[in-house]
Amino acid sequence: MASKTSLRRTLRAYQIYGANTNVGKTIMSTIICKAFKRQFPSQNVWYLKPISTGPLDEADYRHIARFSPETKTKCLFQFDEAVSPHIAARSSKYLSDSEVRDEVLAHLMACSEAGEGTLLLETAGGVHSPTPSGSSQADLYRPLRLPICLVADHHLGGISASISAFESLHIRGYDLDTVLQFEDGKYQNHTYLQEYFEQKGISSLSLPPPPPRGPTEEEDQEIMSDYYEKMSKLDKVEEAIFSLSEKHTKRLENLESMSTRANDTIWYPFTQHRDISPQSIVTIDSASGDFFQTYTPTSKAGTLIPTFDGSASWWTQGLGHGNPELSLAAAYAAGRYGHVMFAGAIHEPALQLAESLLHYLNNPRLQKVFYSDNGSTGMEVAVKMALTASFERYKWDVPKEEVGVIGLKGSYHGDTIGAMDASEPSTFNERVHWYKGRGYWFDFPQVKMVRGKWIVEPPEGMKAEFGEVTEFASLAEIFDIQARLGSSAGRKYSKHIEETLNGLINKEGKTFGALVMEPVILGAGGMLFADPLFQHLLASTIRTSPLFPSPPHASPETWTGLPVIHDEVFTGLYRLGTFTPSTLLQSHPDISVHAKLLTGGLVPLCCTAASQSIFDAFLGNEKRDALLHGHSYTAHPVGCQVAVKSIAKMVGMENEGAWDHAKEDWKSGSRLASVSDQAVQAWSVWSKGFVGKVSFSREVESVIALGSVLAIKLQDENSGYSSTAATGLQKKLLEGSDGFKIHVRVLGHVLYVMASQTSRTEALRSIEKTLLDALY
Amino acid sequence: MASKTSLRRTLRAYQIYGANTNVGKTIMSTIICKAFKRQFPSQNVWYLKPISTGPLDEADYRHIARFSPETKTKCLFQFDEAVSPHIAARSSKYLSDSEVRDEVLAHLMACSEAGEGTLLLETAGGVHSPTPSGSSQADLYRPLRLPICLVADHHLGGISASISAFESLHIRGYDLDTVLQFEDGKYQNHTYLQEYFEQKGISSLSLPPPPPRGPTEEEDQEIMSDYYEKMSKLDKVEEAIFSLSEKHTKRLENLESMSTRANDTIWYPFTQHRDISPQSIVTIDSASGDFFQTYTPTSKAGTLIPTFDGSASWWTQGLGHGNPELSLAAAYAAGRYGHVMFAGAIHEPALQLAESLLHYLNNPRLQKVFYSDNGSTGMEVAVKMALTASFERYKWDVPKEEVGVIGLKGSYHGDTIGAMDASEPSTFNERVHWYKGRGYWFDFPQVKMVRGKWIVEPPEGMKAEFGEVTEFASLAEIFDIQARLGSSAGRKYSKHIEETLNGLINKEGKTFGALVMEPVILGAGGMLFADPLFQHLLASTIRTSPLFPSPPHASPETWTGLPVIHDEVFTGLYRLGTFTPSTLLQSHPDISVHAKLLTGGLVPLCCTAASQSIFDAFLGNEKRDALLHGHSYTAHPVGCQVAVKSIAKMVGMENEGAWDHAKEDWKSGSRLASVSDQAVQAWSVWSKGFVGKVSFSREVESVIALGSVLAIKLQDENSGYSSTAATGLQKKLLEGSDGFKIHVRVLGHVLYVMASQTSRTEALRSIEKTLLDALY
Repeated sequence: MASKTSLRRTLRAYQIYGANTNVGKTIMSTIICKAFKRQFPSQNVWYLKPISTGPLDEADYRHIARFSPETKTKCLFQFDEAVSPHIAARSSKYLSDSEVRDEVLAHLMACSEAGEGTLLLETAGGVHSPTPSGSSQADLYRPLRLPICLVADHHLGGISASISAFESLHIRGYDLDTVLQFEDGKYQNHTYLQEYFEQKGISSLSLPPPPPRGPTEEEDQEIMSDYYEKMSKLDKVEEAIFSLSEKHTKRLENLESMSTRANDTIWYPFTQHRDISPQSIVTIDSASGDFFQTYTPTSKAGTLIPTFDGSASWWTQGLGHGNPELSLAAAYAAGRYGHVMFAGAIHEPALQLAESLLHYLNNPRLQKVFYSDNGSTGMEVAVKMALTASFERYKWDVPKEEVGVIGLKGSYHGDTIGAMDASEPSTFNERVHWYKGRGYWFDFPQVKMVRGKWIVEPPEGMKAEFGEVTEFASLAEIFDIQARLGSSAGRKYSKHIEETLNGLINKEGKTFGALVMEPVILGAGGMLFADPLFQHLLASTIRTSPLFPSPPHASPETWTGLPVIHDEVFTGLYRLGTFTPSTLLQSHPDISVHAKLLTGGLVPLCCTAASQSIFDAFLGNEKRDALLHGHSYTAHPVGCQVAVKSIAKMVGMENEGAWDHAKEDWKSGSRLASVSDQAVQAWSVWSKGFVGKVSFSREVESVIALGSVLAIKLQDENSGYSSTAATGLQKKLLEGSDGFKIHVRVLGHVLYVMASQTSRTEALRSIEKTLLDALY
Repeated sequence: MASKTSLRRTLRAYQIYGANTNVGKTIMSTIICKAFKRQFPSQNVWYLKPISTGPLDEADYRHIARFSPETKTKCLFQFDEAVSPHIAARSSKYLSDSEVRDEVLAHLMACSEAGEGTLLLETAGGVHSPTPSGSSQADLYRPLRLPICLVADHHLGGISASISAFESLHIRGYDLDTVLQFEDGKYQNHTYLQEYFEQKGISSLSLPPPPPRGPTEEEDQEIMSDYYEKMSKLDKVEEAIFSLSEKHTKRLENLESMSTRANDTIWYPFTQHRDISPQSIVTIDSASGDFFQTYTPTSKAGTLIPTFDGSASWWTQGLGHGNPELSLAAAYAAGRYGHVMFAGAIHEPALQLAESLLHYLNNPRLQKVFYSDNGSTGMEVAVKMALTASFERYKWDVPKEEVGVIGLKGSYHGDTIGAMDASEPSTFNERVHWYKGRGYWFDFPQVKMVRGKWIVEPPEGMKAEFGEVTEFASLAEIFDIQARLGSSAGRKYSKHIEETLNGLINKEGKTFGALVMEPVILGAGGMLFADPLFQHLLASTIRTSPLFPSPPHASPETWTGLPVIHDEVFTGLYRLGTFTPSTLLQSHPDISVHAKLLTGGLVPLCCTAASQSIFDAFLGNEKRDALLHGHSYTAHPVGCQVAVKSIAKMVGMENEGAWDHAKEDWKSGSRLASVSDQAVQAWSVWSKGFVGKVSFSREVESVIALGSVLAIKLQDENSGYSSTAATGLQKKLLEGSDGFKIHVRVLGHVLYVMASQTSRTEALRSIEKTLLDALY
């Protein structure tokens, strides 16, 4: 694999940004090029101007060639007009950001093959000057994340321009190696800025400005030659070169040491530390879009390798790593509020998020939003809400500890004790002190594709009751719940649910206070795709069961039977293709829990939404009747603001048809005229043809795909969490192809790949190809 | 109280920032002033140039006066030299940012008293141009948070300058009302920027630039007069004025509606909703430093009132709301990574934070850091760690559920079920389903000041055993643990602890797996100040008790007895004046938990630090032997980066002597020569004299002060959480004085005020005065 890496031991590469246009980037570049050559006479010095417009800019690399003749100069894209590249590009062919990046990377690779050396990449204009595609330079070059030399603005007003330019780079995750300045006696920007950047630990180099132009071209050249000679020999320039060079070395040393230091210091989540070593720890330098930049010490090809984040960073990632809009949203809220105490107070981001979430959930039952910090705490809140509401209504004469929940086998709701207690005993929790599974968990029929067919398969022990496998012509038909309600399967499900509950409650004397389930796909349990009809009927059967007397004169939004909790932490917010998976189930929960994608993949935050009738159960004359739960950072403005932005972005993408091509793909070839509109919402970013092919592999037992989730269950005798069947495939993906590695996580013998909501089609198709190559 | 408000119904105030120097701020201001006058002929239009330097800038308000003669112009501070204000100020008297803000606020107040009108505040230079004090304008004016009209840069390079200027304002929490632009045919910045800002929902107004200067001064004036007349009558200018005016109204309407909408939508933590109404909900527009800007609908004096955040936003706040350094740190990590999956991976902020925390904790036992999302989850992790380690060593033959913790009465460790289970039954948890207090909680002697004397008072039931109250000459003496170890109190404490444990374990047959305590002050339990000697002896007695056989050949860092957990979530990271309260106790925990101040008051994050011998208990051949706990956003880079910055800032403040004046205050008048160095670390930002005075009030039972915490226990018969004794005092503080309100929270009959680590002395003295006025 030829990896596109922006960091190699043999190549010191720096990016020259200007705090403004006409601040002397090229003059500084000339000095730096000459000085590097002086410092390392046997090494190459390259100067790269990726995009140049008009004779003025063209002069940049000619200027370098003239005054630092030993520097190897190159321009990748030349536009004729001397205007902003985005205007120049209009009259030329369209040039995309990724084309520019690919060419730059190819050049960096070529330079780094030629032995040790230094490369300066000079940008055009200021940090946010438009690129040919109309984006900003700071965004265009961000995936490379080269260390920056910022040429400050020495003119009047230049202090402000220089600091703002720094901030624009900083909030995009760039590191500034040094600030280059021309001294100006009148404005003294350099003295102010030197102190300013020193406080931030950033060095600066101040040099006298070039002398006035000579009377003739020839004399001018001589004057400039002298100037460059003098400058490049200055002690402080030499020191600056040494420091730049040292930073390159230190960056590599730091990357090299990180996994060892992490192994010494970090106690990892869900990790048997006996199984890990510095060699197995992935060092992530940075990330952008769907890709980590991971350090690979042994690779000759490069030291930073782009690696597809195939677990969507533990299922959180939605809008791309290093998304500048989310950074700005976070920083805006941090700047406007920091955190502000939320008990009895309101701030705009918390209010906007609650209103927006309730609006798009579009569930008439849900009226109130309770904030907490993550899915696990949000589920504890949900359980506290439901149990209190049940007790309040039914006034059971049993100890409060002994009431349980109804759930599904293989469910998982988080790692705090209360959330664990709502899950069936399993490897995750059986060794945990204080854990006690409280409830009953139904086994359930599963949806999967096997050898090209979508099927619903009852669990082994229930095939006598439910029958064998049922085949469907399309995934959509499985979601056509209204059509399936009257089917024989529907009747069997209802009967089974009723009889089981009756046995548990009336024969075994158990008490239950809530129905808790992850709608459609049970994630951590192994990407178990539940038959939506079964989940639909579980809720409706409990809600109408004579086991639970309904309150008289209740509004249609009042909960009946037991409060229904949807744990949408993993499955919500477009992870499965719809804003809420409750739409796919055609079932309105009384309580729903939202986290992970809520902040687009940036910071922890959770919303537990609840109905008025749940809320009312906590009204009382005493404070202790209230829901006495709260975290210090409840509804922290940073998280809320980022969530407001994330929801708006994702809803906007849906409205703009961002996923229409995938929806079309999944509609094609189905007998869909007969299914309802809501059923057609079952689609995936993973292509239908690819999923079909995977299902025919001899190594594959079954496959599922929905929304951005793809899960491949491999043939393996030793099923369950301790299985290692998928690790072979996982290793093959990590070898990568098409210039990037693919980092995925496995759950027993299930290997899953999770895209973000903004994954590019090319990357997805490339991963599909790699997967098929590995499977066949 | 004369509140300093920046928002009043009667005054539309806008701040004009320039994307650079010389972009035409004054020309735009003139047009806007004239157009406002045209739109609202009967109303006032003010123009304020707070700081003006030299004849060039001086011209600004003269220019307005000349071409918009009906505008009332004012300059507050005039410097003679035509250079940057910070240079000008060097040759003049020093001018602080707060002086400037106070004068601006006074002027805003005066204008708003004169009936309806509009005010434009024009800044000098660009957004980050230095102020006379050397800070940046964007920071200087931030506490006012006036809506912004940004004058874009229409020159070559101006796109970049304009976007960067916007970003610098945005990350400080400013709202942009509009972008004002001069059209330039060549560079077409305005077309690009109009689209750019439109996508962000920000309107813009593009106008033709002023004509070239006339040949004579007189002709030039005429040309400009014509230009202004024409411009101020343009339809699009009229629309822009209408839109600006409407935004002012909408901002007020929004603030007015927020508490009602919150009451409809939000389910508040720890809140009996029957007790709240829209009227009781505090609407927080924004915050800076220690102050919220709260909306007060009924106040004639102003609609936004500065309100001291006296609960330090639920004990989280350390470095000031809207701290730009923390915003930048958050945005940097968001830009560099977003969130990246942490299982088996490492990124720089997580590694730096773990290393930095372990370094400054300076506890040879602590070697590993486990990340989670808040204090409650971090405590669950700590308990899981300790119980597994105990079981692993002692191999008790009891059900895993039945092992308990040793703790202190009144303790609180968070609201998830596992954290609750570690606390004694109380009002907080007794109604919670699934809660079960698992352990034994010691009552303990408390430290307090009563009528001018620092005392240690045993609990009522233990006075027979421990004796009556002991008086100390100073708070420091109470912390002189080495000196007190051999005292009669020390011997009695040890004996009591040993006998109690023996009874619980050998007679009652109980099993305990950990000692869990909040060092020094038990916060949520009512700011209970435990005798540090008792806490010290509790740990050392358990560690050396023959009840727990020690492992052979253990290193000094190996835990003995039971693992000792310090819940430092509230008391750590300088809240009590030292980096860790363990220093005050002279006791090294085996596990310690850190949150709240960890991120300086910005986002949730928690670190659970543990010793190698605790960590080793989870090493095994199977994955399920590991600590199977983890949250999706484990070690999220935004939180880690902000925490790295916060710790560096706070340690830096200590090293620079930021709190030396307070330390001196608490040293004075004590017989401190005789106490150890560590005991002298007992000091408070609340002045010693003030604390003494409070203790003499007839309304006060006792008072404590340590670090940034002040807690006043009021005389009240009905003690406990349901008491309402302190609400009277709370209400008086909310009326405020000295131009600001004071928002505090109460715990039963304890009223506490918590400063941040950066609270200004003047504010603290002012609050002390208000408190004394209310108490006497």
